[in-house]
Amino acid sequence: MTRTLGVLIFPDFQILDIAGPVAAFEIAARYVPGAYEIKVMARIPGPVASSSRALMVAEPLTDAPLDTLMIVGGDGSRTAALCAHTADWIRAASGRARRTTSVCSGAYLLARAGLLDGRRVTTHWERCADLARRYRKVRVEPDRIFVRDGDFWTSAGITAGIDLALALIADDLGEDIARAVARQLVVYYRRPGGQSQFSALVEMGGRGGRFATLLDWMRERLAEPLGVEKLADKAAMSPRHFARRVRPS
Amino acid sequence: MTRTLGVLIFPDFQILDIAGPVAAFEIAARYVPGAYEIKVMARIPGPVASSSRALMVAEPLTDAPLDTLMIVGGDGSRTAALCAHTADWIRAASGRARRTTSVCSGAYLLARAGLLDGRRVTTHWERCADLARRYRKVRVEPDRIFVRDGDFWTSAGITAGIDLALALIADDLGEDIARAVARQLVVYYRRPGGQSQFSALVEMGGRGGRFATLLDWMRERLAEPLGVEKLADKAAMSPRHFARRVRPS
Repeated sequence: MTRTLGVLIFPDFQILDIAGPVAAFEIAARYVPGAYEIKVMARIPGPVASSSRALMVAEPLTDAPLDTLMIVGGDGSRTAALCAHTADWIRAASGRARRTTSVCSGAYLLARAGLLDGRRVTTHWERCADLARRYRKVRVEPDRIFVRDGDFWTSAGITAGIDLALALIADDLGEDIARAVARQLVVYYRRPGGQSQFSALVEMGGRGGRFATLLDWMRERLAEPLGVEKLADKAAMSPRHFARRVRPS
Repeated sequence: MTRTLGVLIFPDFQILDIAGPVAAFEIAARYVPGAYEIKVMARIPGPVASSSRALMVAEPLTDAPLDTLMIVGGDGSRTAALCAHTADWIRAASGRARRTTSVCSGAYLLARAGLLDGRRVTTHWERCADLARRYRKVRVEPDRIFVRDGDFWTSAGITAGIDLALALIADDLGEDIARAVARQLVVYYRRPGGQSQFSALVEMGGRGGRFATLLDWMRERLAEPLGVEKLADKAAMSPRHFARRVRPS
């Protein structure tokens, strides 16, 4: 059974929003031949410029049923969301699809098409407040890598599209295949859901990667007791200073 | 000062190998306007099919100097490495560039062009042994996300290209910009270097994500003492069983 993944792009889309999921589905289809077919579509087909100026080639919008409809994000998402023709097509394509998904600010196009009213969703952390303000009926969850609400799956920013795709693959083909895909992509499978936690970890990367080294060291010792004294010593800090530095502000 | 990133693609390239770095450089240029310009090139310009069948549009190979030459990987890398014209261009372009980089199996093209002899490099974990066998003078380090050897930077598989790009950006524009880019991309800055450690963590994702939940929980409590008893309890296992399960096999 071949599932068609139909991805909508538009001028100034974010190329990594699409490339992450596409790579994941492509690799899943190596493990389960024929599992997925990928269609890249745009309202104006042909070469479409991403926000990086790198060009991808899109097919025309299809009226054929898709298994999974995916709307990517990017700088152009708010402009694309204003196009009535695009919104009409998204509504119709979503109605024909088994599931509807968005990556990053692709959620704006789904929201504008009225498909997210009453649903729990997420988007890029920088856009969550704005999305919630513009679309009052949408329940934005800012602290998630992706959110599933029935047949609607939305993801956080950019690389979170990879996590979303791995979850969709797990749903279709099982956890083992999804984990094998993650290993091929060299990404963590089941990344922590919380973007605020994620941000705190990023902060800890710090100048000179002091805590990055510590985190590596901790990962090697997950089965050992790691008290604050031991961690502080490894980070060459006093326990008190260490505890103050690693506590998210 | 605008740095030109020239990325070489070829039939059956891996689209995520290029999209990851491109997105990182694109976003860095939002923080430092004009910092980077991206050129996607191929020996046969025009639409080039990736291994996912999604198409990117490439310009002809340039004779103008590039700041950074980047060779991506993918299923087509070994075939592309056999093209003498491509190898000649890579040698010349590398000679004119400030630095030469590869993502994933892009290292095969650099190796074939003779540019990696005597150098420490890395590639996708699945290809490390093969690369070392084919190119005896290349010192392959299998357990790294990326390796810098002078002006040559090579990365591990697929998404490791993002980590490589962040390191290049940090080298050019400083750690703060690179960290801001990571935050926009929703990726960890300074991911653990070891792919074997990485693989062990992936394994721990396990069926049903039992350890994934535990890892989340641990990340929230980095400043607390986390003894094996407490971790085992959280994972609903006996300490002995837990220690056996989390120890990489």
